[in-house]
Amino acid sequence: MSAPQLKLTYFDGAGRAEVARLLFAFGSVNFVDERVTGEEFAALKPTLPLGQLPTLTVDGTVYSQSMAIMRYAAKMSGLFPEDPVQALRVDMISESLIELVNAMVNILFMEKDETVKAEKTKKLVEEAIPKTFGVLESFVQGKFFLGDDKPSYADVQLFDLVENGLKARLPEASVAAFPKLEAVMENVKANAHIAAYLAKHKKD
Amino acid sequence: MSAPQLKLTYFDGAGRAEVARLLFAFGSVNFVDERVTGEEFAALKPTLPLGQLPTLTVDGTVYSQSMAIMRYAAKMSGLFPEDPVQALRVDMISESLIELVNAMVNILFMEKDETVKAEKTKKLVEEAIPKTFGVLESFVQGKFFLGDDKPSYADVQLFDLVENGLKARLPEASVAAFPKLEAVMENVKANAHIAAYLAKHKKD
Repeated sequence: MSAPQLKLTYFDGAGRAEVARLLFAFGSVNFVDERVTGEEFAALKPTLPLGQLPTLTVDGTVYSQSMAIMRYAAKMSGLFPEDPVQALRVDMISESLIELVNAMVNILFMEKDETVKAEKTKKLVEEAIPKTFGVLESFVQGKFFLGDDKPSYADVQLFDLVENGLKARLPEASVAAFPKLEAVMENVKANAHIAAYLAKHKKD
Repeated sequence: MSAPQLKLTYFDGAGRAEVARLLFAFGSVNFVDERVTGEEFAALKPTLPLGQLPTLTVDGTVYSQSMAIMRYAAKMSGLFPEDPVQALRVDMISESLIELVNAMVNILFMEKDETVKAEKTKKLVEEAIPKTFGVLESFVQGKFFLGDDKPSYADVQLFDLVENGLKARLPEASVAAFPKLEAVMENVKANAHIAAYLAKHKKD
């Protein structure tokens, strides 16, 4: 079976597509990294399955939903555990990270009342994030979340959430109090393919 | 390899656990269906990985996050496509259903302002749900979402969302305008194991 032809389409930013890009990079999976402008998106929108980006085109068929795309990218990159129980463990960690992402998006982009937004942001930064990170810290088993120093998609997802989500949008939230999570991030960054990807897409 | 010992722990209601229970039922997977009271949960809470229910205990190890548990249950029940592209398709549908569940939970249980709650509920019922259901209607390929009349976890998830979510919490939202989705639900209900489970847990 030949490798599928893959094209990931999103805006020219990290957002909801970066974790899939990083996963493809990690596993040296060839894909077209299509980045569109707002105008191009407006033209594309009526043709997209759910009217949203990112999309992943696999051999000509277009799929939506960033988390579905993330898990497909993880499988293609060898970062999705084949053992169902290991997959359950990684998926549990992944869902905890998704909760933080969704909370952040809901507060920063959906909440219109500035007073409520400030209160909710404070609660997220001072309570929800440290609480989840504290639990995740206890889940790290070695260099990564899985034992035997096996990387998985949750490691890459943590890296993306902190590097592209928190540092950009909530700089007051810090991972510094969680040395094992910091180490996981360093280990992701140390992967040669990830380093090459990051160097290529370096922010100014 | 012997079958894993499984125990699903949740309150005595549908909520965040029913889709996993239905999936196990569909696949005739043996599991202990543990249902706890609020008091029992309070006692358990400090011992749970994320302080939340549902949990799934696999051979003595406790895992959290309902969607991670759902996907594990789907694998054990033969309802998770092995082909990565088919899994991507089902996962895309699944994520669209999850978006509706999360929107419903956020509005009905988290929104404190009654005026805002009413506005958001109206928008969910009149816009978001029909929009998503319209797209999902176009994804149905035969008896279920996948071609060749292969059931998958997204079919069971749709059934759970409509039967236990919308009918109970948002009766003004209806699936009646979407005959293919209604047919998927009927086909799920027609499964002998599901029918037996539903008869056993019939609501009064």
